[in-house]
Amino acid sequence: MIKTISFIGSGRVATHLAIALAEHFDIHQIMSRNVEHAQNLANKVAACAITNFDELKHVDLLIIAVSDNEIKLVAENLKNIGYANLVVHTSGSTDLKVLSGLELNSGVLYPLQTFSFEHQVDWKSTPLFIEATLQDNQQQLMAVVKSLSQRCYEYTSEQRLSLHLAAVFACNFTNHCYDIAQQILSNKAVDFELLMPLITSTTHKLHQTSAFENQTGPARRDDTNILNMHQEMLSDQPKWEEIYRLMSESIQKRFQN
Amino acid sequence: MIKTISFIGSGRVATHLAIALAEHFDIHQIMSRNVEHAQNLANKVAACAITNFDELKHVDLLIIAVSDNEIKLVAENLKNIGYANLVVHTSGSTDLKVLSGLELNSGVLYPLQTFSFEHQVDWKSTPLFIEATLQDNQQQLMAVVKSLSQRCYEYTSEQRLSLHLAAVFACNFTNHCYDIAQQILSNKAVDFELLMPLITSTTHKLHQTSAFENQTGPARRDDTNILNMHQEMLSDQPKWEEIYRLMSESIQKRFQN
Repeated sequence: MIKTISFIGSGRVATHLAIALAEHFDIHQIMSRNVEHAQNLANKVAACAITNFDELKHVDLLIIAVSDNEIKLVAENLKNIGYANLVVHTSGSTDLKVLSGLELNSGVLYPLQTFSFEHQVDWKSTPLFIEATLQDNQQQLMAVVKSLSQRCYEYTSEQRLSLHLAAVFACNFTNHCYDIAQQILSNKAVDFELLMPLITSTTHKLHQTSAFENQTGPARRDDTNILNMHQEMLSDQPKWEEIYRLMSESIQKRFQN
Repeated sequence: MIKTISFIGSGRVATHLAIALAEHFDIHQIMSRNVEHAQNLANKVAACAITNFDELKHVDLLIIAVSDNEIKLVAENLKNIGYANLVVHTSGSTDLKVLSGLELNSGVLYPLQTFSFEHQVDWKSTPLFIEATLQDNQQQLMAVVKSLSQRCYEYTSEQRLSLHLAAVFACNFTNHCYDIAQQILSNKAVDFELLMPLITSTTHKLHQTSAFENQTGPARRDDTNILNMHQEMLSDQPKWEEIYRLMSESIQKRFQN
């Protein structure tokens, strides 16, 4: 059973996760190259701040919450040293295999959520995905994530990677569409807030019907006049015009088939 | 003061708008080339169904709710005939000028909302935009839309056209991103519903901070490994791969400046 936890990393994921887990577990150490960042998070969860791998003490669970690029490097530093009964990373887009060089038991604890320092996280409704090489670890990890969320799942790396790719479309790219819309409107002194009911309605419908069935707009209607007029309106912003053209073509193609 | 209203058109916009207006006004006639469609809507609002322009009787307000392509043709058919004190179209992406050939007073009544036959419309929170050539008509139109919604605005054609273009990005293109995400996940037997908290959180943040500030994801972090891996995962879907590449480039460009 997992009782003690340490973190490598002090960024957004580490911060939100450590604070949430501190309500149920003893957080021992926060390791970060930046001592100030480590200390800042350590203060919030009554842990010790450290900056080097050789300062790490043994815990039940070591959570690697660093940027995806750095997981491999961290894993190499941990190699052959028994810092924890179980080591997990928190990346949606990294295979469990990245930790396979460790002699420690390895796993994944992936929270499907965007994290920022400005916004609170609703952990109870955040889907949490776990994966582990050993069945025993899987059960222990499940107990940890169930203390946070009502939506906990065992997923393979392949499923988790697809989920992360889908999230890039459904969240990151949609947000960029909002960003472009906000820039278009601010140029004409029109309040973006006016679009909020339409935006809310677009997402709300996903609970009832598929996005395919919900599709509307000039591309869906094959309305060439409007499509041309909009591209004309975007002629001073070549990148937006290209996005407009490509998205419209993709919608048209979707409804031809 | 407007008391009697007729519609040209019996599609989604005409249907939702006529049903909502029938609670406050007398709907006289529903005209459509398709007599069955006209009769279907006429039954719902206690009006008469007609199929020809010469059957139109005089009303206070004639609402042209047809597809954008057809507004001009309808306007030409109405030319020089005193069917109504005021004629408006309902298009977000059509200039008021399209009705300028009419000797009748002309205007626009644009509801910023997606309409489908399956979903109810929350009229009270739907932004309604009006425009009219004459000040007197503007006041009369404002009284009509205020009977439906708490969010009524006088906007120029230029502002309305920008709003519609922004809505294509913020709603139509985002919905297509949801559609792609749903297809990616169904191929791997992963439930799209898992993404809903993240999707809701992405849109909810727009009330507090700008989409620019809210942007997350591999392109925002310049995470080349993930960007390459995702494009690799999409290699059997060239259109999705192209969208992934272009959206990511656009996000990266946005944060370089």
